[in-house]
Amino acid sequence: MRDKNIERFDAGGIRRFFLSVLKAANVREDVAALVTEGLVSTSLRGVDSHGIRLFPHYINGVEGGRINRNPQYRFEQTAPATGRFDADHTFGHAAGIEAMNRAMALSKDAGAGLVAVYNSSHNGAMAYFALEAAKGDFIGLAFTHADSLVNSPGSMRAFFGTNPICMAVPCEGEEPFCFDSAPSPVTWNRVRQHREEKKDMPDGYTADASGNETTDPGKAAQLFPIGGYKGFGLAMIVDILCGLLTGMTGGRDNSNMFMDTISQKRMLGQFYMAIRIDSFQPLDIFKKRMKQLMDDIRNEPRRDADVAVMVPGDPEKKACVDRSKNGIPIKEHDLQAFKLVADRYKVKFIK
Amino acid sequence: MRDKNIERFDAGGIRRFFLSVLKAANVREDVAALVTEGLVSTSLRGVDSHGIRLFPHYINGVEGGRINRNPQYRFEQTAPATGRFDADHTFGHAAGIEAMNRAMALSKDAGAGLVAVYNSSHNGAMAYFALEAAKGDFIGLAFTHADSLVNSPGSMRAFFGTNPICMAVPCEGEEPFCFDSAPSPVTWNRVRQHREEKKDMPDGYTADASGNETTDPGKAAQLFPIGGYKGFGLAMIVDILCGLLTGMTGGRDNSNMFMDTISQKRMLGQFYMAIRIDSFQPLDIFKKRMKQLMDDIRNEPRRDADVAVMVPGDPEKKACVDRSKNGIPIKEHDLQAFKLVADRYKVKFIK
Repeated sequence: MRDKNIERFDAGGIRRFFLSVLKAANVREDVAALVTEGLVSTSLRGVDSHGIRLFPHYINGVEGGRINRNPQYRFEQTAPATGRFDADHTFGHAAGIEAMNRAMALSKDAGAGLVAVYNSSHNGAMAYFALEAAKGDFIGLAFTHADSLVNSPGSMRAFFGTNPICMAVPCEGEEPFCFDSAPSPVTWNRVRQHREEKKDMPDGYTADASGNETTDPGKAAQLFPIGGYKGFGLAMIVDILCGLLTGMTGGRDNSNMFMDTISQKRMLGQFYMAIRIDSFQPLDIFKKRMKQLMDDIRNEPRRDADVAVMVPGDPEKKACVDRSKNGIPIKEHDLQAFKLVADRYKVKFIK
Repeated sequence: MRDKNIERFDAGGIRRFFLSVLKAANVREDVAALVTEGLVSTSLRGVDSHGIRLFPHYINGVEGGRINRNPQYRFEQTAPATGRFDADHTFGHAAGIEAMNRAMALSKDAGAGLVAVYNSSHNGAMAYFALEAAKGDFIGLAFTHADSLVNSPGSMRAFFGTNPICMAVPCEGEEPFCFDSAPSPVTWNRVRQHREEKKDMPDGYTADASGNETTDPGKAAQLFPIGGYKGFGLAMIVDILCGLLTGMTGGRDNSNMFMDTISQKRMLGQFYMAIRIDSFQPLDIFKKRMKQLMDDIRNEPRRDADVAVMVPGDPEKKACVDRSKNGIPIKEHDLQAFKLVADRYKVKFIK
């Protein structure tokens, strides 16, 4: 797994670098802390597509006016278990943790907490938020909608985004279970990678601009949903929560992360939920059973003796142990982008 | 679509027949009404696998002791938004509607209602329950676990069941949106159909008893999950809600619908959720936007001019219009099974 050609950097050093840049860019301290933790923890878990590599893009967003440095959050509790959170166009990471904290507070009293976030921006990997709830011994659920990239069955083009569903669940004796999955076989980032490496896509993953299957990553314009209309439906239910229930746009009306001008607000919505476990079962018994369930799966008979049967989140846990010890690999391209940011703000680089 | 060789029967006649049998079998009136409505409405929507054909099996369950004719429900509200519902081993259909009604009542005051059902039995199609919530202007979510049939990636065998996720959402000017989907490309019933018709399965749908792909329906012993570990993870999060959070079993420990003795209680769990829409958005605006979203999808450019772009649930709506008018088709095999039930209880057959 470990690529010797890619230099690795200590997570602590990356954190300090990001915080220095965000301070120099006049991003408020609490916001800076949350977006930094969101990006670094995501890269520690091996999810490079949604981790630290996005930092220069976000900094452009701050400078361009897309992302608000100094948000005035507004939380309105609408019922014992529900609330609406105005993110005031700040980093989706910061808004997400603030919203999940409120969902947990609601859940403490009401048994469940559901918070719809509006006026938000890109919030990276959903695991960051769901795991925050799981660390507090709640079942955490996190949803966001995204750029329109998933082909609608029968149509020439994409309508919904790669709208992820994420659930994290606490368990005894190891880090929480976390399932975080888009309704497409791969991320769009993977298509970009295949383009760079001039490698064909696997069968059934991508379609061209007319909706016809292609394995040529250069011709790929959209992703097929997993299981046809099933993945399409999953993308739709997430957009109902994140677009309609938040009062934001949805489907093809969503803004575009990289194509729109950097001054344009994203106007995204996210939906967070925290479920209090002991509203249903004694917490200690539930956590024991959760651990047992995970171990039972890992002990299932293997098809290939050398290939483990894994629980969703296991590869990320493995990456996290490795990267916490040996550092986070940063590709040359991203390193150069970080260096430009360092120069721009005259802050010390990672090392 | 309409098969002229299959006789059709009026839904009203089937309802009356079922109610007569259930009465003769001493099933309590309220329970009988709900299971009848669940089965008939499912068949009206064209979901034959989970509709009226299961009636003789359930009747065997009543006679065998698996299903309780006269349940003593016990509902315990544990927090403003949450509760536990003891189904006392009755029909899962009846328990599900009772539980969803309580979820809606909780949601009315708390903004959301989450009810975990335990000591339950097979509850048919999830749409029945989610649509009940949507008809009350709530967003309805329904989950159940099921017989272990979905292959675990990397393993020789199945661990989780074809655990469905279902969401129904009210909209203006037409029946509610309803997405109801198992994390496998098809149901196990479809494999049985292919066996009967001696037709190969499509690529990538089924595995043999060693977990290796097979298109031979006779050798198929399990279903692959959609999107590999993604579908597997979806099955897992449903089992966490329906097995762990209800205090029931999960995974391979679940009982088996057809293989276990008919006296054995199923000991299944289900999880129901109702979200109050106006806790987040004005109801009328939300329902207008929901209708617009559905129409926008249907108006997307078609890959094939003759093939419609559909919203999940559209085929079921079409079937419901047709079958409400022209009757529900009943295959000869099922008709014979119904006639045996009619004889056994000395009740008038459908017509």
